[in-house]
Amino acid sequence: MGKQAKTAITPTRAEDYPEWYQQVVVASDMAEKSIVRGCMVIKPWGYALWENIRTILDKMFKATGVKNAYFPLFIPLSFLEKEAEHVEGFAKECAVVTHHRLEKGENGGLVPAGELAEPLVIRPTSETIIGDSFSKWIGSYRDLPMLINQWANVVRWEMRTRIFLRTSEFLWQEGHTVHETSEEAVDRTHMMLGVYKKFAEAYFAMPVLTGSKTPSERFPGAVDTFCIEAMMQDRKSLQAGTSHFLGQNFARASEIKFQSSEEKEEYAWTTSWGVSTRLIGGLIMTHSDDDGIILPPRIASAHIVLLPIIRKDKERETVMEYTRQLALELREKVYYGRNIEVEIDARDIGGTRGWDWIKKGIPVRVEIGPRDIANDSVFVARRDRSHRDKEGIARSEFVANIGDLLDDIQQTLFDRALAFRTENTVIIDDNSNFYNYFTPKDPDNPEIHGGFAMSHWCGSQTCEEIIKKDLSVTIRCIPLNNEQEQGSCICCGKPSKERVVFAKAY
Amino acid sequence: MGKQAKTAITPTRAEDYPEWYQQVVVASDMAEKSIVRGCMVIKPWGYALWENIRTILDKMFKATGVKNAYFPLFIPLSFLEKEAEHVEGFAKECAVVTHHRLEKGENGGLVPAGELAEPLVIRPTSETIIGDSFSKWIGSYRDLPMLINQWANVVRWEMRTRIFLRTSEFLWQEGHTVHETSEEAVDRTHMMLGVYKKFAEAYFAMPVLTGSKTPSERFPGAVDTFCIEAMMQDRKSLQAGTSHFLGQNFARASEIKFQSSEEKEEYAWTTSWGVSTRLIGGLIMTHSDDDGIILPPRIASAHIVLLPIIRKDKERETVMEYTRQLALELREKVYYGRNIEVEIDARDIGGTRGWDWIKKGIPVRVEIGPRDIANDSVFVARRDRSHRDKEGIARSEFVANIGDLLDDIQQTLFDRALAFRTENTVIIDDNSNFYNYFTPKDPDNPEIHGGFAMSHWCGSQTCEEIIKKDLSVTIRCIPLNNEQEQGSCICCGKPSKERVVFAKAY
Repeated sequence: MGKQAKTAITPTRAEDYPEWYQQVVVASDMAEKSIVRGCMVIKPWGYALWENIRTILDKMFKATGVKNAYFPLFIPLSFLEKEAEHVEGFAKECAVVTHHRLEKGENGGLVPAGELAEPLVIRPTSETIIGDSFSKWIGSYRDLPMLINQWANVVRWEMRTRIFLRTSEFLWQEGHTVHETSEEAVDRTHMMLGVYKKFAEAYFAMPVLTGSKTPSERFPGAVDTFCIEAMMQDRKSLQAGTSHFLGQNFARASEIKFQSSEEKEEYAWTTSWGVSTRLIGGLIMTHSDDDGIILPPRIASAHIVLLPIIRKDKERETVMEYTRQLALELREKVYYGRNIEVEIDARDIGGTRGWDWIKKGIPVRVEIGPRDIANDSVFVARRDRSHRDKEGIARSEFVANIGDLLDDIQQTLFDRALAFRTENTVIIDDNSNFYNYFTPKDPDNPEIHGGFAMSHWCGSQTCEEIIKKDLSVTIRCIPLNNEQEQGSCICCGKPSKERVVFAKAY
Repeated sequence: MGKQAKTAITPTRAEDYPEWYQQVVVASDMAEKSIVRGCMVIKPWGYALWENIRTILDKMFKATGVKNAYFPLFIPLSFLEKEAEHVEGFAKECAVVTHHRLEKGENGGLVPAGELAEPLVIRPTSETIIGDSFSKWIGSYRDLPMLINQWANVVRWEMRTRIFLRTSEFLWQEGHTVHETSEEAVDRTHMMLGVYKKFAEAYFAMPVLTGSKTPSERFPGAVDTFCIEAMMQDRKSLQAGTSHFLGQNFARASEIKFQSSEEKEEYAWTTSWGVSTRLIGGLIMTHSDDDGIILPPRIASAHIVLLPIIRKDKERETVMEYTRQLALELREKVYYGRNIEVEIDARDIGGTRGWDWIKKGIPVRVEIGPRDIANDSVFVARRDRSHRDKEGIARSEFVANIGDLLDDIQQTLFDRALAFRTENTVIIDDNSNFYNYFTPKDPDNPEIHGGFAMSHWCGSQTCEEIIKKDLSVTIRCIPLNNEQEQGSCICCGKPSKERVVFAKAY
């Protein structure tokens, strides 16, 4: 490793989880902080991952009849104000455009000029601007359902930012649909939540809970917000995607009406749903270890790196030719809808080369030296196992079984994450146990604490607030199809009919 | 047609070209003006086209070693100021963010609050913000070349906007590369220009001239700007893509330095190149007719629409089943890298149904009625021919030859556009002929005038300005590998060594 540390990432997770996260991102070469406050630069290795997320989700959306479109970056202030809760929710974090040119100021430098009659807000989300289009596009029930998605950048001026998890600008998709009836809109809300769950579990190898949010955690303006919640390695919860049933709130705000089949004019029912680059933060905190990121094969920026080992110059051509041929063979194979992506790294930089790829999280590393070539075999290391754990495999066998190998890594990552969540999910019925569970044991490491507590809640916002204030713990979701049982609220002791998921959260 | 007009679009091209353009866009359902000044909404039919552009170009870029990344939307004002010509070029059209939240104002409405210490400009292009990253990423010649592309939205606050052609916000890609030597950077500039030309001609069926811009038409801050220029149907020129050799200008502005193999610190050489949603405007004005858009098959949002003809209810199931089966068969075929995309339109809306698809420009329309089914044949219309020109074809033959049919349409469109450009390109050596050529003959129709004039130019900016002022005609490009010959400047009569392309332009 060329360093004294025992792990590639310093500090380790146990030592300082938040700092470990920052270091893992840097070491992975996926993204970095920008000079612009709160914004990030997504580097090629990170952007390739986003492209895969986009490609896969886009196909899943389109399979449900959704079409993509694009709406303006700017939202007139008056639009945002149309829905009272909505503007209330976003007013504190809006980037506002007030001028449309620059001119020489008194000290010779440039200053904003050409003040706009009405300020424009950079979209923090697009319900109101898309609603304006919907109100024009929809005339009759025959135009419904309308199923639109947009891949875009959005801006929410966050005070405390962390790369991927919370940035002032981020990339996302936002789906917006319009329906004739409440039932249809609710069905669509659940359908898209199901798409997110399937995507998270099948591609991200990230087990998620699905449920609804309590009123205080809802999207501003929504009637009901559903979410997927995943447990991170520090046992905090990450909201990784949301799907909102908006009722008629935004239809009324934007005048989205239709002529019903009975020729009556009615307000439509709408939904919206989104996931963002935040997902990548969740991926990192689900699978990485103290050597860096571990990318699940079905979503990985690339699947395999070939590392030719050349000790003498006269070996170079043989080894490189063998490497190139192997790459060609592998690239012809298809794994989960895309050709296997193979990197060749022939840099002569010693031991740091292998470590670079460990830190980048590539699922499979293959060393190819003259001796391996003589045996027509390759030396294979899996990122989900220890870096010392390498295995010689006959080349033909390796190529033939590469899909199985990648699937095995994928499954291992999922199983591990699921086992971790199961281990760290407890049923708690006693208030002092609950408080104890969420109180950090190690004063040097306040981030390490309990996990998910399944506890009774009476439904009162006051109890939510007390727990949030005391422990920074919130109700992550009320699970879908939740079992109904008699119990006592973990906070006030009053009767409760169901358990909900309590956790600290990102 | 259900209208009295002889054409689907009113006015016709001959009657009022600019208004025809607006009407074609509306009728195509590709995009519309947004409530936000100068911005557009790209509707699903238009966005599907953009997705195809993106997919194809992205593959072409990656084949040359380019990788995608993503940089912040915001550029600090001080960054833009680093390159003097650059800021000069963009200062008049910058959207400026000055505040980061909203709060209740005196009259109860929301007003911008939280003034930023330094205003942020919404990127009009990203040389300066990407340059900042490059300066950190590049240490030695081993890091070069660095080949990065970004797909993004950009904002240039235009005073006069026209959908797709000139909008305040638009979508584009911007490539940015860094090289060790001037030669390498120049080579890359030409390579990407070649990619654009190939894309325009092979996919858009749009013949383009390639050449360099005169100094007055260069990208602000560039040493040399190269472009692809296409002739529109009103014989104006459209700059459809540009590739810039930036020399060391931006490397100096952003401190992009590297350690050379001789261990000297040197400024790097950079390029940038881009195409945008403007391309779609060019596509429309290259191929459309008085019935609307004509989409070239290799880029079309979809290839074929199936129009089941159901006159009696009892026929419905048979006709629909036949239609669905045909769609399945067609969708399995691959044309230019993507599966053939088939729409089924079973709306019972009479004759307007076929016209909707003509106006949307889908390459092939197929009518399927009970009589056709009895003969196992289909009734096929090509969008590149008259709407009356339909042909019965055996179903099996239609399916087997669909690739050839699409290719024939593609080639027809290209040939037609090339013939039009050739017809409307003239060599002019006489000043009064030149002025006459560019003077509109019909006072009611000032848009109709000459075309491309290949005329001598002495190289002086004064001559350019005179011609621009008198005729609104500019030098579109100095053709690549231009033939050198003795001549006299079309403006001043002084000696000139080559002809350049003069035209009116978008």
